[in-house]
Amino acid sequence: MTHLIAIGGSDAGISAALRARELDPATEVTVVVADEYPNFSICGIPYYFTGEVQPWQSLAHRTAADLEATGMRLRLNTYATGIDVSGHRLEVRNPDGQIEELAYDELMVGTGALPSHAGIAGLDRLGPEDGVHVIHSMGDTFALDRDLTDRQPQSAIIVGAGYVGLEMAEAFTVRGLRVTQLQRGSEVLSTLDPELGALVRDEIEAHGVEVVTDTTVTGIEKTPAGLTVTGTHRGEPIQRTADLVLVVVGVRPNTELLEQAGATLGAGRAVVVDEWMRTGLPHVWAAGDGIITHHRLLGVTYLPLGTTSHKQGRVAGENAIGGDARFAGSVGTQVVKVFDLVAARTGLRDHEAEGAGYAAMTTAAAADDHKRYYPGAHPIQFRITGDTRDGRLLGAQLVGRRGTEVSKRVDTYATALYAGLTIEQISDLDLSYTPPLGSPWDAVQVAAQAWSATRASLLV
Amino acid sequence: MTHLIAIGGSDAGISAALRARELDPATEVTVVVADEYPNFSICGIPYYFTGEVQPWQSLAHRTAADLEATGMRLRLNTYATGIDVSGHRLEVRNPDGQIEELAYDELMVGTGALPSHAGIAGLDRLGPEDGVHVIHSMGDTFALDRDLTDRQPQSAIIVGAGYVGLEMAEAFTVRGLRVTQLQRGSEVLSTLDPELGALVRDEIEAHGVEVVTDTTVTGIEKTPAGLTVTGTHRGEPIQRTADLVLVVVGVRPNTELLEQAGATLGAGRAVVVDEWMRTGLPHVWAAGDGIITHHRLLGVTYLPLGTTSHKQGRVAGENAIGGDARFAGSVGTQVVKVFDLVAARTGLRDHEAEGAGYAAMTTAAAADDHKRYYPGAHPIQFRITGDTRDGRLLGAQLVGRRGTEVSKRVDTYATALYAGLTIEQISDLDLSYTPPLGSPWDAVQVAAQAWSATRASLLV
Repeated sequence: MTHLIAIGGSDAGISAALRARELDPATEVTVVVADEYPNFSICGIPYYFTGEVQPWQSLAHRTAADLEATGMRLRLNTYATGIDVSGHRLEVRNPDGQIEELAYDELMVGTGALPSHAGIAGLDRLGPEDGVHVIHSMGDTFALDRDLTDRQPQSAIIVGAGYVGLEMAEAFTVRGLRVTQLQRGSEVLSTLDPELGALVRDEIEAHGVEVVTDTTVTGIEKTPAGLTVTGTHRGEPIQRTADLVLVVVGVRPNTELLEQAGATLGAGRAVVVDEWMRTGLPHVWAAGDGIITHHRLLGVTYLPLGTTSHKQGRVAGENAIGGDARFAGSVGTQVVKVFDLVAARTGLRDHEAEGAGYAAMTTAAAADDHKRYYPGAHPIQFRITGDTRDGRLLGAQLVGRRGTEVSKRVDTYATALYAGLTIEQISDLDLSYTPPLGSPWDAVQVAAQAWSATRASLLV
Repeated sequence: MTHLIAIGGSDAGISAALRARELDPATEVTVVVADEYPNFSICGIPYYFTGEVQPWQSLAHRTAADLEATGMRLRLNTYATGIDVSGHRLEVRNPDGQIEELAYDELMVGTGALPSHAGIAGLDRLGPEDGVHVIHSMGDTFALDRDLTDRQPQSAIIVGAGYVGLEMAEAFTVRGLRVTQLQRGSEVLSTLDPELGALVRDEIEAHGVEVVTDTTVTGIEKTPAGLTVTGTHRGEPIQRTADLVLVVVGVRPNTELLEQAGATLGAGRAVVVDEWMRTGLPHVWAAGDGIITHHRLLGVTYLPLGTTSHKQGRVAGENAIGGDARFAGSVGTQVVKVFDLVAARTGLRDHEAEGAGYAAMTTAAAADDHKRYYPGAHPIQFRITGDTRDGRLLGAQLVGRRGTEVSKRVDTYATALYAGLTIEQISDLDLSYTPPLGSPWDAVQVAAQAWSATRASLLV
């Protein structure tokens, strides 16, 4: 009987454990979880702070009881401290603080990522008790929740305006805090082209958030007036003070355990794995935010996403018990709701595609989500990137009002990217149409045709 | 300079004309339109009757002025009566009733379809002035509108419960009429499996529509009590009387013109064309509801749909001026909104797939449109059809509440069908996720995984 140990209670570890149990109920599965919150939806945390999700327990994809009912064993509050690869043993610190060794046949490491500090001075000293927060775990969530409740802060500075930063700007605004958002890039949501990021910025500004872009934060300190964040804004010093500071400037892979065991680091200093999720260390698999990501257009990159972790974990779980599954690769599909706007992307942007050797061209288009004569139509803004040599679709970015089905429209492009379709072929797709929900040429096709028309005009 | 004449002011004819003008502004284009309503959205008519679309002019995709601004010439109220293929001349009856001959270099026939009468006695005699209606053109629309306004009918019988029948049941209900819907099949919306059709039936019944399935209507007559519809219901006579009758039992291809010119009829007695939209008659092209449909899973069928007409018309317009475009084929994607429910399908259902030689298996699944912890989540009901031999996706059917992005979720399957993906590959797709709008495994993947699990259990 194989004993599989999965390290990590988040998407990768749990997916691996579930898959192994599903495929072979004879497999003994132990999941080592550093805290007591296995299988929580970290992506859902901002909605706990808006008040839309209550109580916090409902953020669990599955309860501990649900997980145990599948036959896996959970070791909560248990921290993996070392791997003895040749001895097939995992060293852990158990809830009592004791070091213990667990024997395994197969080991799946899903230790994920850690919040980045981006070199901001003060973050090593200041923490939740000072009103300075990160938000990456349920522990962080409880600390922030307590702080909001106990101190009733009136103002917040959010450092970073990526997905989580924007969602938390919404959450703090909904809770009545005055929010200042400091962003290093020239526009918020820098994973989108600035033309579309600007629409997201308009949306949060319309809800009262002060947005300061082109700002590199260098330090945070406690002052009599509160918490003072300092940095540079277009070459000039900048300073903002608020009652609370939240730093959400991305993550870095948590690789210590695998590095010490002899694994190799690659893109983004994440652990190198192959498409079977093999680390190269015998019987040691890895998945999730701690590893490099196979990408269908880029080869290999670092792109930590929950959807990817689920897929990789499933592959690792299957292979750890003798399967032959292969991670098919990400195309980088992402979506975020910010107040009443939805912004999504898949594939590559122009500069990313150029950097990867494609002959990229990007065109903009707007098309209504459904026939304008039917009430409630709204335009969706598109940016389509393709290769001018062979017409291949390389990427798509969409922003539209909530309700315009942006999140599932991006999936059409994501599916086309997976299949390697050309932009011309997007027009061939037999997409659904009824006037309240679409157009005879769906908006995704109108945007594709605009790209094709531009390309044709260049060829003349 | 090429002179292209397109016959038909609906999707196929206009799409051909637009494409020819777009690609070569030197092309002279004339569109012969039987009525005075070119480029109207016939699919939008039900929403004119709900009152959501007003005035009727807004149903035009483009106005006559918009069309003429592209450089095409419109011949309105002009009826094509004959084609002289060898002489390259089209005979028309002009608005004065005069027969006229128009010379062409290329001819694109988009004469569409006509409402089916399904052998119902009385339909040859009774018309709008009697309160008996079909709904296929703007003329029909005005006649029904006048009747509703002038006579103020209190009750309506709708014969047929397909897409248009269901949309009109909603429209009449919204306008305060008592509606009885008579349906030949065992369930409404017989393009879906009855398990899903039943959900649509529940929806219209919840809004007060009386639904009688398994009913073959044989006659309509005027009686002192109103209009009496007679037929058989499960072998027994059935009779219903109402103030107004609407017959929406499908369409038949309008092929007279091409048949007389020597074209061949095929599937559904529609005109045979190849994938370049060639009729076989020199310089005569055809597109739209009057022709057979190339289908990526069936080869050739008859499946009149506006989306298909647009694509075919575009191909015909391009080829008529010397292009080499090819219609990529339909996969039969369709969607309908019925009150607050959205029902969609793409590809083949089980019996259709079996009939076409596939080893079909269909499984049911339900999955939430987004994470349940976030407010407003609703389950989507799925039925997935695949080939048990090679795992290929063959079809998908979805029903969910409005707002669950069913119409764009079916597009993911439609894109996968286009690309010939397996159901396993649906799980590989990098689809978008944020808790308010999806799940780490999107509902479309959960449904695919249910199919795979069933298949795996059969292989054990």
